[in-house]
Amino acid sequence: MDFLTRVRLGRLACARGDKPYVVPLFFAYHENNLYCVSTVGRKIEWMRENPLVSVEADEIHSAQQWESVIISGRYEELADTPETRDRRQLAGSLLQKHHLWWEPAYVKTIVAGAERPIKLVYFRIRIEDISGHRATLT
Amino acid sequence: MDFLTRVRLGRLACARGDKPYVVPLFFAYHENNLYCVSTVGRKIEWMRENPLVSVEADEIHSAQQWESVIISGRYEELADTPETRDRRQLAGSLLQKHHLWWEPAYVKTIVAGAERPIKLVYFRIRIEDISGHRATLT
Repeated sequence: MDFLTRVRLGRLACARGDKPYVVPLFFAYHENNLYCVSTVGRKIEWMRENPLVSVEADEIHSAQQWESVIISGRYEELADTPETRDRRQLAGSLLQKHHLWWEPAYVKTIVAGAERPIKLVYFRIRIEDISGHRATLT
Repeated sequence: MDFLTRVRLGRLACARGDKPYVVPLFFAYHENNLYCVSTVGRKIEWMRENPLVSVEADEIHSAQQWESVIISGRYEELADTPETRDRRQLAGSLLQKHHLWWEPAYVKTIVAGAERPIKLVYFRIRIEDISGHRATLT
């Protein structure tokens, strides 16, 4: 788990039907969950329909030397409701602590040249399975 | 496409049923295809069943500054048969040229501590859709 605390950047795959979709993901690891914040978009829409996800995080030096962790997990949205308010605040606090705060005033996400209005979604990925892989020169 | 030629490392997501799976992927871009070589494993098994994949490649400097390309594509195995021999040789030549050659004699893939016998599979991802995303400080 030290690896996940250190790396902080991964790639998140979700799926709609038999179609996968992978995007970069900044996260803060805490007690078997990856805490994240994102703008609304395809990945959020897909994960709301199908919460099964895969997250990969790695340190890659070359095709012959790399270390990678692959997580099988479940999307859980942290809405601003009484039930999830504590977890949502935890997410905010963790992300801020790790300097992964997504600053709406400073950052613009540009998709295909068009700027979209920014709505933030807090969520966490509950880790259900994790495996490590590495390649080394021998 | 200059980006894909430059980056060479991406993450590949495939899916079985509604379950996604994402792994690192070294590739050589050539005429709308990503050429790859891999050991046999879960991703190859899954892509043989469902050829729909997503590949993400990026240059990430921070949570606020990154550039990423997301590909929607289709897996095509390059078997050692008369029909696909040319494409398979092309794959080998491209991967060798870009120093992405997977050297069985030097590399061991270690999965969960167990060494597996190495069988190489050549394949390409045909790009069906590609989109660019970036975040910049403004």
